[in-house]
Amino acid sequence: MSLYGELANRLREHIEHGFYKRGDKLPSVRQLATEHGVSISTVQEAYRVLEMERLVEARPKSGYFVPRESTNDRLPETSRPPQRPLEVSQWEQVLNLLSNRPANTRIQLQHAAPVMIGNTIKPLLKSLSELHRSRPEWGLGYGDIRGHIDLREQLSRLAVSSGCQLHPDDLVVTSGCQEALSVCLRAVTEPGDIIAIESPCFYGAMQAIKAANLKALEIPTHPEHGISLEALELALDQWPIKAILVTPTANNPLGFVMPEDKKQALYKLAQQYDIAIIEDDIYGDLTYEFPRPRSIKAFDNDGRVLLCSSFSKTVAPGMRVGWIAAGRYRDRVTHIKYVSSSMCPTLSQLALAKFMRQGGYDRHIRKMRTLYADSRDHLLEAIQRHLPSSTRVTRPAGGFVLWVEFAPEIDTVALTEKAQNKGVAIASGALFSATGKYRSCCRLNYSDQTPVLREEGIKILAELIRTEYPGAYS
Amino acid sequence: MSLYGELANRLREHIEHGFYKRGDKLPSVRQLATEHGVSISTVQEAYRVLEMERLVEARPKSGYFVPRESTNDRLPETSRPPQRPLEVSQWEQVLNLLSNRPANTRIQLQHAAPVMIGNTIKPLLKSLSELHRSRPEWGLGYGDIRGHIDLREQLSRLAVSSGCQLHPDDLVVTSGCQEALSVCLRAVTEPGDIIAIESPCFYGAMQAIKAANLKALEIPTHPEHGISLEALELALDQWPIKAILVTPTANNPLGFVMPEDKKQALYKLAQQYDIAIIEDDIYGDLTYEFPRPRSIKAFDNDGRVLLCSSFSKTVAPGMRVGWIAAGRYRDRVTHIKYVSSSMCPTLSQLALAKFMRQGGYDRHIRKMRTLYADSRDHLLEAIQRHLPSSTRVTRPAGGFVLWVEFAPEIDTVALTEKAQNKGVAIASGALFSATGKYRSCCRLNYSDQTPVLREEGIKILAELIRTEYPGAYS
Ligand SMILES: Cc1ncc(COP(=O)(O)O)c(C=O)c1O
Ligand SMILES: Cc1ncc(COP(=O)(O)O)c(C=O)c1O
Repeated sequence: MSLYGELANRLREHIEHGFYKRGDKLPSVRQLATEHGVSISTVQEAYRVLEMERLVEARPKSGYFVPRESTNDRLPETSRPPQRPLEVSQWEQVLNLLSNRPANTRIQLQHAAPVMIGNTIKPLLKSLSELHRSRPEWGLGYGDIRGHIDLREQLSRLAVSSGCQLHPDDLVVTSGCQEALSVCLRAVTEPGDIIAIESPCFYGAMQAIKAANLKALEIPTHPEHGISLEALELALDQWPIKAILVTPTANNPLGFVMPEDKKQALYKLAQQYDIAIIEDDIYGDLTYEFPRPRSIKAFDNDGRVLLCSSFSKTVAPGMRVGWIAAGRYRDRVTHIKYVSSSMCPTLSQLALAKFMRQGGYDRHIRKMRTLYADSRDHLLEAIQRHLPSSTRVTRPAGGFVLWVEFAPEIDTVALTEKAQNKGVAIASGALFSATGKYRSCCRLNYSDQTPVLREEGIKILAELIRTEYPGAYS
Repeated sequence: MSLYGELANRLREHIEHGFYKRGDKLPSVRQLATEHGVSISTVQEAYRVLEMERLVEARPKSGYFVPRESTNDRLPETSRPPQRPLEVSQWEQVLNLLSNRPANTRIQLQHAAPVMIGNTIKPLLKSLSELHRSRPEWGLGYGDIRGHIDLREQLSRLAVSSGCQLHPDDLVVTSGCQEALSVCLRAVTEPGDIIAIESPCFYGAMQAIKAANLKALEIPTHPEHGISLEALELALDQWPIKAILVTPTANNPLGFVMPEDKKQALYKLAQQYDIAIIEDDIYGDLTYEFPRPRSIKAFDNDGRVLLCSSFSKTVAPGMRVGWIAAGRYRDRVTHIKYVSSSMCPTLSQLALAKFMRQGGYDRHIRKMRTLYADSRDHLLEAIQRHLPSSTRVTRPAGGFVLWVEFAPEIDTVALTEKAQNKGVAIASGALFSATGKYRSCCRLNYSDQTPVLREEGIKILAELIRTEYPGAYS
């Protein structure tokens, strides 16, 4: 473990065991450096980790403190999924969610679609339109089966910001991240194999596991630090797990960013058990912290990490452009991508390549990052104000969805239907479990609507809960 | 069997056994009707079948004749693939073909891309461009997972021309026909299952069989009438075949249209053995005969046929828009389509829907049909003029590819490489076999180039053969 990782662990223990109390000032950077015989930057790095976990708060000019009002009070607990590989169910529920027409919904907190209005996306739409006007013939033929080289070049440059050295030839362009995940799952498994996943987990990944005739082993996951490495190691000892599929950076649905040392430890574990990691980085560029954290792929020195991503959350899902950096699995991935849908449309790839080359992508995500961070705070306030005090909620470090855990008696499957009748769409937690657990949880987005509408949506949920579960507010 | 089918069979036997000879006039319609106690239209239908098979030739005002110069003289024989289920190989070869850069090729006879210049495609490009200019926001969000309703409505209207009654809700839009085939294969099988296919067979379908962990059982296939039902029935008795995958209407690579009574018999066979048919109709609208022949799906009264198609051959592969009419398998197909790549881009679907609604699609394929029929004749002439007289070749009834069978000693795998060095690209027959058979065959397109360039390509092939296999011209 790194020096700063060790120091962070020690400080974390002291805070968690109450050695430092709420509101306490923590030792200064200089003090700790001397005390532990490490450099100033090591201490700074350790504090950065704890800040990300929100165990520590930096106050300008005054130093580091233990936050007075710990948001962790209302955090959900580490999840406790069933401890064996299972077939994924819940397809009916996912289909219902996917089929929900926008027309039926006044307040949309259900789908994970990004904000797609505003000036920063316009240059992309403009060049897409221009290409269709002036170069329609470029869009007609079969293109490169690995994706257009212009786009792969830009993607290889973008990868640097997450700490990856990727050659354009390491990349395969896909029809969104959904295809990327499906292809990678098929590339590293045989039917019947077991995949370890976070719990809760994005339903699309689980349905891909189901369709590839695989079993899912849900691993307990902490709402702020991600998948439990202890639980994962136990599972690896007990079951012939073929790959680990995780979304470690701005997780859907929990919103956490797994600390860097933990990412590294996860990679080591995969190495030790000689298995693959499928890393879904679709929200990776949308962490509120900047520069963005490194991906697990950044630590990959033997090609066992298959990084999957797309522009669906950073730009627009309708582009249907994603990619895979498949390491040592590249050739199998190319084969399965080809049989899966052959090539991807050329003009969208070209327009995105230009958007990136001209700095439009960076400008856009910079703006989105701030927008989502603010929206998160608004939504958290609305939740705190209106929902029962027993409600627990995550505090995402990126992306635009959060996870709500109600008291156990509240059934969000029923609540979803009742809310839909009042024009409010939410996603029941049951979708994010292989077996329909998390029925007392739900996922809410904070991208689609204005703060006012979002708060109204929360109020409507609160009213429904008050009516259906009068005990919740007592 | 239908009355006209029986009559056609009887006449076919008479012709094949030499009862009627080259150049002979055949009995008149009226004569046959009286003789066999059937209606005029039954005889006409029987003659139409034999015309399509080119066993009979209609001469305006004079009646029906046995053609003097039977093109069948130079037809390849019914194929003789290995008679057991096998793993598909040849991926390296397919990847080579797919990766071949256009820049390396002066004369392109290799890829099966349609003609994409000309006026009739312009309205489509115009509305695509207009949508991108005026309605870019429609292209941004996730759309309907089954495909846009406007397109599904037009596809359901189009289906009537192939004899199908399809409701828009019976259809699922896909990223091209490749995804359609992959999804259908996964929807009707379990890993390890056996799929019966035509031999030779489109390589993309075979690679999808491989990627889905299935085995391919290649069935002998006649170059003019399609898959041998006798051989298929024997195979069905011997092996637990799960589905039959065929391209019966303007087959790739052979070009045949399976006669309608045979399509019906194939369907009956599938019913008898209770298995599914995956029908690839991608070239179906490009038969030279008009109105186009019915698909097998037209006879499907219990939902066992999964029809797959796309706009890749009729309009442009770069659109990446295809579809599935999956009958009783619709729900499984929807699931696998969703996990495979989620939704398809909306604006392409909308532009195609408008193109169809306004009659542009019909106008376009009407023009293409004539163009390809003429190009076929030019290419056949060039082949007859320049290639060794031992060369056999199919005479496609639709589409824009044909199949050449050289003398057994000619190796097209080597020839492909030598031709590529001279700027001529062809597709070796080995790609169209699960095991690399058909090394003395190749597939040539007649869409991409002018007749002059095509003839030049054939001349270059002829020269190479003359140098490498001097015996071939003796
Ligand atoms: C974590 C995660 N992975 C993958 C996807 C699928 O992405 P795409 O729309 O690019 O196929 C989503 C979209 O909801 C997601 O949230
Ligand atoms: C018979 C056949 N089926 C399917 C395909 C794949 O079509 P698409 O480009 O629409 O994915 C092709 C294309 O070559 C083909 O020839």
